[in-house]
Amino acid sequence: MGTATARANANIAFIKYWGNRDDRLRLPANPSISMNLGGLFAETTVRWEENLTADSFGLNGKEDTGAGLTRVVAHLDVLRRRLDIAQFARVESRNNFPTGAGIASSAAAFAALTVAGAAAAGAQLSERELTTIARLGSGSASRSVPTGFVEWYAADAHEESYAESFGTPNTWDIVDVIAVVSKAHKPVGSSAGHQSANTSDLQTARVAGAEERLRQCKQAILNHDFAAFADVVEHDSNLMHAVMMTSRPPLFYWLPPTLMIMDSVRQWRADGLRVCYTLDAGPNVHCICVREDAAVVSERLRASSEVLDVLIAPPGDGAQVLTVSIP
Amino acid sequence: MGTATARANANIAFIKYWGNRDDRLRLPANPSISMNLGGLFAETTVRWEENLTADSFGLNGKEDTGAGLTRVVAHLDVLRRRLDIAQFARVESRNNFPTGAGIASSAAAFAALTVAGAAAAGAQLSERELTTIARLGSGSASRSVPTGFVEWYAADAHEESYAESFGTPNTWDIVDVIAVVSKAHKPVGSSAGHQSANTSDLQTARVAGAEERLRQCKQAILNHDFAAFADVVEHDSNLMHAVMMTSRPPLFYWLPPTLMIMDSVRQWRADGLRVCYTLDAGPNVHCICVREDAAVVSERLRASSEVLDVLIAPPGDGAQVLTVSIP
Repeated sequence: MGTATARANANIAFIKYWGNRDDRLRLPANPSISMNLGGLFAETTVRWEENLTADSFGLNGKEDTGAGLTRVVAHLDVLRRRLDIAQFARVESRNNFPTGAGIASSAAAFAALTVAGAAAAGAQLSERELTTIARLGSGSASRSVPTGFVEWYAADAHEESYAESFGTPNTWDIVDVIAVVSKAHKPVGSSAGHQSANTSDLQTARVAGAEERLRQCKQAILNHDFAAFADVVEHDSNLMHAVMMTSRPPLFYWLPPTLMIMDSVRQWRADGLRVCYTLDAGPNVHCICVREDAAVVSERLRASSEVLDVLIAPPGDGAQVLTVSIP
Repeated sequence: MGTATARANANIAFIKYWGNRDDRLRLPANPSISMNLGGLFAETTVRWEENLTADSFGLNGKEDTGAGLTRVVAHLDVLRRRLDIAQFARVESRNNFPTGAGIASSAAAFAALTVAGAAAAGAQLSERELTTIARLGSGSASRSVPTGFVEWYAADAHEESYAESFGTPNTWDIVDVIAVVSKAHKPVGSSAGHQSANTSDLQTARVAGAEERLRQCKQAILNHDFAAFADVVEHDSNLMHAVMMTSRPPLFYWLPPTLMIMDSVRQWRADGLRVCYTLDAGPNVHCICVREDAAVVSERLRASSEVLDVLIAPPGDGAQVLTVSIP
């Protein structure tokens, strides 16, 4: 047993994952697609070691002994079972972007943990299997394993709900310009949120239309058809937030500046900029735009006093092992 | 033929009307209930006169020769057909509250126009029939004809989709504290909005649950059960706005301060105030509270720099004829 470090990018979903058909296995209610966010990553080192008496976990240089550790230990248990590992592990992870504010920190984290944990054990798992294991830690982590533009399949069996790439980072030259309006940790985490999705009367209808929206979105990406892309991406985001705010109790992830930016983005597009918005379970607004329009979008966002920060990410790679050392 | 003046209060729906099964007859997709807003009224004078050569319409002292006049003429046509009137009419109407900003100005206006128009013709129509005629002008106007707390039935035939009171203004001592955050006319009027409701995948599910929510809401009103009332009223409002924002194209009626106030109201209620929110097709927030808590709610709203004005309305009467003169 040894040590490995892996890096995985965050991803932004264009057709959203919200709600599970099986909460324990994180088998999603509907398929989803996303783009990896180049440069916004988690880097995770796993060291399996004989003489450890328990797993431990450091996040961004700070020891986590609470809920974060519990979730990491559960994921290490999955790897131990699959790879017949008897040892405990030391895990250290860093994000280079704000944690828990709608930038899919858990997706990057569990993709990196999965890939590093397997590599440190000297295991050669297929990408497909790595996506299913990552999924058990955080659903959308499955989409951070393959490269570029990724589809994650919905299915009733663990092995069938995997993710795969349908386009490299070069497939389409679009950019995610993220308007950060809050760096606070979100009040209701995604795992709890997913479990509440079925309490909304509207979830069934959202799920029923997801496959068709996914087909339209994928087509728009492959055709570089920004107008069609913007239409279905904003609609899908609106549908997910409609389900959230009609759950019992309701989940409101939007803040006042969120609403203002969504409105501005629609206006900018009407005025000719190729930009649209999408929001995860958080208040930050992902402004997806063609590369030529990224600078002006970013400038306009920075000009707003409500925007704390602007992050820019092109399509990114899949999860990668950076170093392995197996004595 | 003569002249009559009638007054009708605006109303605020607790279970919302959104979308029609028949757009021309304004037969609603689902039943709704509301409270008349005492003191927020339209006062309308109709004068049927032999020597007029066309209908004309003054609103708040200004001659309306555009879309407002067209809609008034269409409603006068309904009255002419029903009451065998050959004359044209002069109509003058005033609201004592901002027009077109989510305070149901058209509801009050068409209730008053219907009642004044019939009275000026010397007709004695039943309240039930008056509610159906008012409905043809503006769906929710049917609810401004009867007194106090009102239910408007959904049905497939004109005569069956009427409104009636299920409680007088004394039934429950609650107050609508309206936070006005914009006095601008809304970008998409309710009539166009209703016609777009079926473009949302979520409308069917919203409509399917409306009868049960209505039953719960009515029960809560009659039992003075504020907690149950708040729960279903906010949920129903969230459902309507979820449908709006997932229509094609989407309708966003909320402004950033709207979202801020909704969040504050949920927080205030968690802290013990008996207050909940509901929003019509506009950005202003109706904060429904028990009378004892109205002063503190109003104070807190006024303390916000985003709130332009606060209007306070207790349960109000039905539409009333103020003066009639038939030579």
